[in-house]
Amino acid sequence: MHSLQLDNLRNVLIRQEETIIFALIERAQFKQNRIIYQKNGIAIQDFDGSFCDYLLFETEKIHARVRRYTSPDEHPFSPSLPAPILPPMNYSRTICPNDVNINDRIYRLYVDQIIPNICAAGDDNNYGSSVTCDVICLQSLSKRIHYGKFVAEAKFQQAPAAFADLIKRRDEEGLRREITHPAVEERLLRRVEQKAATYGQEIDENSNGATYKIQPAAIRRLYQEWIVPLTKTVEIQYLLQRESTTTIEEPSTSSKETPHG
Amino acid sequence: MHSLQLDNLRNVLIRQEETIIFALIERAQFKQNRIIYQKNGIAIQDFDGSFCDYLLFETEKIHARVRRYTSPDEHPFSPSLPAPILPPMNYSRTICPNDVNINDRIYRLYVDQIIPNICAAGDDNNYGSSVTCDVICLQSLSKRIHYGKFVAEAKFQQAPAAFADLIKRRDEEGLRREITHPAVEERLLRRVEQKAATYGQEIDENSNGATYKIQPAAIRRLYQEWIVPLTKTVEIQYLLQRESTTTIEEPSTSSKETPHG
Repeated sequence: MHSLQLDNLRNVLIRQEETIIFALIERAQFKQNRIIYQKNGIAIQDFDGSFCDYLLFETEKIHARVRRYTSPDEHPFSPSLPAPILPPMNYSRTICPNDVNINDRIYRLYVDQIIPNICAAGDDNNYGSSVTCDVICLQSLSKRIHYGKFVAEAKFQQAPAAFADLIKRRDEEGLRREITHPAVEERLLRRVEQKAATYGQEIDENSNGATYKIQPAAIRRLYQEWIVPLTKTVEIQYLLQRESTTTIEEPSTSSKETPHG
Repeated sequence: MHSLQLDNLRNVLIRQEETIIFALIERAQFKQNRIIYQKNGIAIQDFDGSFCDYLLFETEKIHARVRRYTSPDEHPFSPSLPAPILPPMNYSRTICPNDVNINDRIYRLYVDQIIPNICAAGDDNNYGSSVTCDVICLQSLSKRIHYGKFVAEAKFQQAPAAFADLIKRRDEEGLRREITHPAVEERLLRRVEQKAATYGQEIDENSNGATYKIQPAAIRRLYQEWIVPLTKTVEIQYLLQRESTTTIEEPSTSSKETPHG
């Protein structure tokens, strides 16, 4: 198994902030259009779900066929997807096999919390444009939050004995303390607020720089209240599965400090 | 027919600048990955085209089923698409029926000119991520450029007699002069360069504000050399079809200044 560098992972996470902020700004140009999230709010033949579910499922079917979900950093929202039509990729093994997928929670968070926070109330009939943005928002949030697996593995590799002990004792609170770095989190929150203020500002000839497409504080809150905690949930779930699904690291019988493979 | 306000149309076009710039910045994080644009560069069963063609076609099939291309401001790249599974929308009639679609040219421009200008040369294996961005870039460029139809109709409504005369004489150069406003274009170019500088800047703790994900001058050039001229091409093609496909405005026999319907 290739070892993971926390610095490299952080650079990936930092770049994903732009992707998430751009996607949310795009969605925010349309009203909430709640009907697209209501089951059968828009009736679709042979489909029992919302318009958003439909577009997401159809998009994931395409992406599954071109093997998106064979990548360890991609997680589908839909339960049953077709097999890839492309030959398998050889990904270098960086994390342990696991079945952690909290997309159900991410979906509910998105529809119930994020949409009302970033979009004006009401209906502007832009259903297709809205759900096209929704799919991109959901995929980028899912990717960011499930990246917690890589972060957790890297943290494990930095202190395997301590983590193995916490995992053995199923000590979720201990794991949460071990993976939490308040100074790093505060830097992250300051950075995403600054990015939201820069990338979300209106630019026109009469601009005074004070008008935003999404309030920067709303993006900070999104990270603080949801993205960071859900990433930790993924980290902890991954670590709790790690013990049972791998024999790479056995601190009690081996002197090796890092996994290999 | 509802009359079109040039000011409203300009606001739509101005908002589309963000969409295009965000989409290009997202694509620019990956290398050119030329193989995804080569016919059968990635072999796909029962499909004769590039990987980008495949994703675009599959995406357009979904969007066609949810009636995207029944909207007068949406134009597919793919030639034969399935019928909508949703009942038709009643769009208020704002432009005349026409079959102007220059997506073939937009596609070639994108692959041959834009990608080499915004992406680093080489291959980073991020094929799926790249083509997902490509689809969004192509759709946003197509929407912006084909908005020329609405712009042309609004300009026609402001001076129907002059336009009808130029159309009758098939005077393409005269039409081009009539629709061209150098001061407006210069403001547009300054604005997109400023947007690219703002939205494309790297933000980190050591940022000096001088690092860009895409050079602002490249975005200005994209608008100057391609988006503005291609929009004019759409405007002229639309106007040349307008005469033969509508009897809404007959300046020689009617005193009405604006079409109706």
